[in-house]
Amino acid sequence: MEEMGIFQAMHTARALRRLKPDPVPDDLIAKVIDAGVRAPTGSNLQNWRFVVVKDAQLRREIADLYRASMEIAGRAYANRKQPPHMTNDRQKAMMSAATYLAQHFGEVPVLILAWLQFTPEQENPQLPPEHMPTFVRLSGGSIFPAVQNMIVACRAVGLGTVLTTVLAYKEAEVRNIINAPADMRLYAALPVGYPMEGYGHGPVRRLPLSDVTFLDRYGNNWPKK
Amino acid sequence: MEEMGIFQAMHTARALRRLKPDPVPDDLIAKVIDAGVRAPTGSNLQNWRFVVVKDAQLRREIADLYRASMEIAGRAYANRKQPPHMTNDRQKAMMSAATYLAQHFGEVPVLILAWLQFTPEQENPQLPPEHMPTFVRLSGGSIFPAVQNMIVACRAVGLGTVLTTVLAYKEAEVRNIINAPADMRLYAALPVGYPMEGYGHGPVRRLPLSDVTFLDRYGNNWPKK
Repeated sequence: MEEMGIFQAMHTARALRRLKPDPVPDDLIAKVIDAGVRAPTGSNLQNWRFVVVKDAQLRREIADLYRASMEIAGRAYANRKQPPHMTNDRQKAMMSAATYLAQHFGEVPVLILAWLQFTPEQENPQLPPEHMPTFVRLSGGSIFPAVQNMIVACRAVGLGTVLTTVLAYKEAEVRNIINAPADMRLYAALPVGYPMEGYGHGPVRRLPLSDVTFLDRYGNNWPKK
Repeated sequence: MEEMGIFQAMHTARALRRLKPDPVPDDLIAKVIDAGVRAPTGSNLQNWRFVVVKDAQLRREIADLYRASMEIAGRAYANRKQPPHMTNDRQKAMMSAATYLAQHFGEVPVLILAWLQFTPEQENPQLPPEHMPTFVRLSGGSIFPAVQNMIVACRAVGLGTVLTTVLAYKEAEVRNIINAPADMRLYAALPVGYPMEGYGHGPVRRLPLSDVTFLDRYGNNWPKK
């Protein structure tokens, strides 16, 4: 089978939150994760760990935690300013899909949990303490690239998914459910399934490059095409 | 021109640290960033900002800061345990390439600096303080996916690059050089150029999936093929 073109895949990898409960073949999941791990990790440590949750009871328990974590995030961001490009209609559509996902999280056939296994303090005894928050902030550079490869790979094989991170607010509880050791840090949860009819992949709309890109100095916007 | 297949691009997007000083057409840079922004951001805020540095004097100044930040990171990680898959030969090859890049950072024709513009405390007045470190840790989920799309896009158009994050240890100084406001947080710097002969793209070797992937519970390794 011919592969989808890389730009076509990226440009149509919409965030899909309405997914069928139909099972997904293990081969496809393996292909997706296998694409994920082609991404880099800091110092090539490959300290990422992926937990593929298929067990129905586990999925229900994690769905409860997902809803609890959504509540934490929702309360927190309630006062956040809506950016101009998020019109009321788009905001409403996103919220409606997010609510659908939260309500049906446990019915999505596959969850891929993306973790890093690391102990910042033990690994970096000589990092000046004022740099520790930066180190932890940058740690995502060893896991979100893999997650993005998986998102684009899902799109290429016809699977829907969406990047969610809020479950990390219930990291300890998730760790407990899946028997993960204390040095596992949760960064993302990808619900993966076939897209529902009418909610499939399509063009990803974004702000024009010239709005978010600068040449040499901030304020010197990249020329409009 | 036919697009490269998505899996081929991901599986051969090697971290390239030896890059020619030859100029790179703006069209290709735009194509790469345009692929980058097809990645998601939290709540679709699109609060990423990309600064494309081409000015030679600016690149030299940033190269000095890169070397200073490498020193911070190098001292800090000196005692880190080498993982078993990083044989002495592979470790030496990586260090040699990293040293080459540091010495020649200012000669790489294009630097793409990847930032988020955000003020965690102002945006989340109601986030319980104990969740703030998690919020900041997860913020990378709104920028590293775009960075990974750019890495794979570079590979597809024949450009070399490598994900570096250490420059963030000199964030304030970089911000100052490019006149960026205080609410800009630096996450990554991608040096972009044509690969030197003999140091081009090729298969990305990784640990077997069954070493880093589990089914349902930690310890229950994904079956070997």
